[in-house]
Amino acid sequence: MADWLDEVRFSEDGLVPVIAQEAASGRVLMVAWMNREALTRTAATGEAVYWSRSRGRFWHKGEESGHVQKVKEIRLDCDGDVILLTVEQVGGIACHTGRESCFYRRLDGDRWVDVEPVLKDPALIYRK
Amino acid sequence: MADWLDEVRFSEDGLVPVIAQEAASGRVLMVAWMNREALTRTAATGEAVYWSRSRGRFWHKGEESGHVQKVKEIRLDCDGDVILLTVEQVGGIACHTGRESCFYRRLDGDRWVDVEPVLKDPALIYRK
Repeated sequence: MADWLDEVRFSEDGLVPVIAQEAASGRVLMVAWMNREALTRTAATGEAVYWSRSRGRFWHKGEESGHVQKVKEIRLDCDGDVILLTVEQVGGIACHTGRESCFYRRLDGDRWVDVEPVLKDPALIYRK
Repeated sequence: MADWLDEVRFSEDGLVPVIAQEAASGRVLMVAWMNREALTRTAATGEAVYWSRSRGRFWHKGEESGHVQKVKEIRLDCDGDVILLTVEQVGGIACHTGRESCFYRRLDGDRWVDVEPVLKDPALIYRK
């Protein structure tokens, strides 16, 4: 049994939010979820494995797109209920919209403005 | 009515997770929660106002410690269910433990190791 997993405070539904941050640029790429098994697999394999709530299954990030996340560091916050991954984002694209980061909308006065370029057409990313 | 708020997908309990990132260093400082009113106040005042789940009230970050967060940017992710604040962390300390960041524990093999210094004794931060 891995005691370090017991220090993570998973929610009632067994999940913990996970931030992925690009190691080189410091950009916050995305937030997803892990359960105990996903976190175990991530630590063991060195590649981010999330739990997809919408699909109800494990999600090895990049399994379709090739945009895997190579994990450099795994951190836990003071409350033990958020994980921060420092990653090398292969392909430079974390978002399913083809952008580097999922956080591409910036509040400008009273509206959200897209401020990040689409680096690759999602139709070309997910054409398998 | 502010339409931009309608694009934020608050959870069933009316909350959205918010990441605070230091503008200058790119360090991820903390994750907390906002409801609609907290987000409105944050946008209007330029200082981070969270909703404290444990205390059941608004939490103007720094109200006791003086460590307010001056908001430089507010971003929304592709799913509309996570907010990213770029902030100037006054005092350089976001964590209640006296550290810059709440993410001070790093997984090293099979244990979490504290890898960030305590910059100020919490007893001195919260001595009001």
